[in-house]
Amino acid sequence: MTTGVRRRMGVEERKRQLIGVALELFSHRSPEDVSIDEIAAAAGISRPLVYHYFPGKQSLYEAALRRAAEDLAERFVEPREGPLGARLLRVMGRFFDFVDEHGPGFSALMRGGPAVGSSTANAMIDEVRQAAYEQILAHLDVTTPPARLHLVVRSWVSLAESTALIWLDGRVIPRGELELQLVHDFAALAAVSAAYDAEMAEILLRIVADEPAEGPFGDLLGRLMGLGTRLPGQRVP
Amino acid sequence: MTTGVRRRMGVEERKRQLIGVALELFSHRSPEDVSIDEIAAAAGISRPLVYHYFPGKQSLYEAALRRAAEDLAERFVEPREGPLGARLLRVMGRFFDFVDEHGPGFSALMRGGPAVGSSTANAMIDEVRQAAYEQILAHLDVTTPPARLHLVVRSWVSLAESTALIWLDGRVIPRGELELQLVHDFAALAAVSAAYDAEMAEILLRIVADEPAEGPFGDLLGRLMGLGTRLPGQRVP
Repeated sequence: MTTGVRRRMGVEERKRQLIGVALELFSHRSPEDVSIDEIAAAAGISRPLVYHYFPGKQSLYEAALRRAAEDLAERFVEPREGPLGARLLRVMGRFFDFVDEHGPGFSALMRGGPAVGSSTANAMIDEVRQAAYEQILAHLDVTTPPARLHLVVRSWVSLAESTALIWLDGRVIPRGELELQLVHDFAALAAVSAAYDAEMAEILLRIVADEPAEGPFGDLLGRLMGLGTRLPGQRVP
Repeated sequence: MTTGVRRRMGVEERKRQLIGVALELFSHRSPEDVSIDEIAAAAGISRPLVYHYFPGKQSLYEAALRRAAEDLAERFVEPREGPLGARLLRVMGRFFDFVDEHGPGFSALMRGGPAVGSSTANAMIDEVRQAAYEQILAHLDVTTPPARLHLVVRSWVSLAESTALIWLDGRVIPRGELELQLVHDFAALAAVSAAYDAEMAEILLRIVADEPAEGPFGDLLGRLMGLGTRLPGQRVP
């Protein structure tokens, strides 16, 4: 029976199956702890046959990473309609879905390590970061970002990664709160930059001009104003 | 002459010299591009003698990283006196000194890669992050941080890393601005968290209560208020 099934699978189909099996195993345990034997067993084929499709453990890992990276980059795609805060919040929801689905694999990959920290893996991670960066600029309607906007977007992408990693480590704070917080963090980092740079101030004011008062940006602003009233008197102008 | 000098150096002294030579080379080029031959030549000894002190390239790299990590962790130490914003700003100055001195080495290490992304290297990087984290908590006078403060401090440490990496890539924005911006970013991330969590609000209000109006936190607040007056009318309460 198994042999029969095996014969009917083409090369690409078999590769896809092995990648899927590997990703499923990496969603429960770190790639370093998953052997080719386990992947072979879960796919119902022999170890040598796995090596027939993927010449080494590293090549299967990289193929799995490639699929996961494409999957994640696709989740960044969001229609350019409606308020920006709400768009970013939807993307954050899909980002945390991904992180949730790939927990240990995501964690091991982003923290680096002997089995996963190859230069190919790092290049793929950088491609995903670049995809996120480009999506955000496109939503902001900016084609040539000034240096400070480049910094805000790039460093926010890195903040989203580290926030997700911290969440995975115990899942103490509900993910919904963190999705919203990351949207707020984006606004906060942009505001800090705008406070000291006229060009960033123009960009920020353009962004928030179209935000509804009840959206994530408006809500944050209202709460910060509330917090401001509790500050020592000399601070309120 | 060379032999005479070599004889007078003890084992520890020679190791320290080789580490110093390696770090000096890594400050100009990525560790991946620096060979043991070059380190030997720069130290004025033979390649086999380098291997006598360090059994492999990796062990010399890790020893160099160990010294750099200790150096960086020492720069985090700041007297617990005066306003917090000014303390953090001084630490940021020393952090950027370090990043400046170790440019390509810092970059290669933090981006990961075949020569530097070992699990020992990752463990040392995590130790430095932990040292930064503990210093900040100590300055905030917090011994058992709530989950949201843990998140703010940890993710800000990661933000400081990525900001430094972006700075190294072209040094477009003056480092002084980035040192100040990171202090502001800390306040901004804490404020976002405080806007949605009463415990964080208490911590934030306690921090800013002692901040002078002309310090980095007070200055940012004044500027943000100024920016707020330019927002669409419905946003100002």
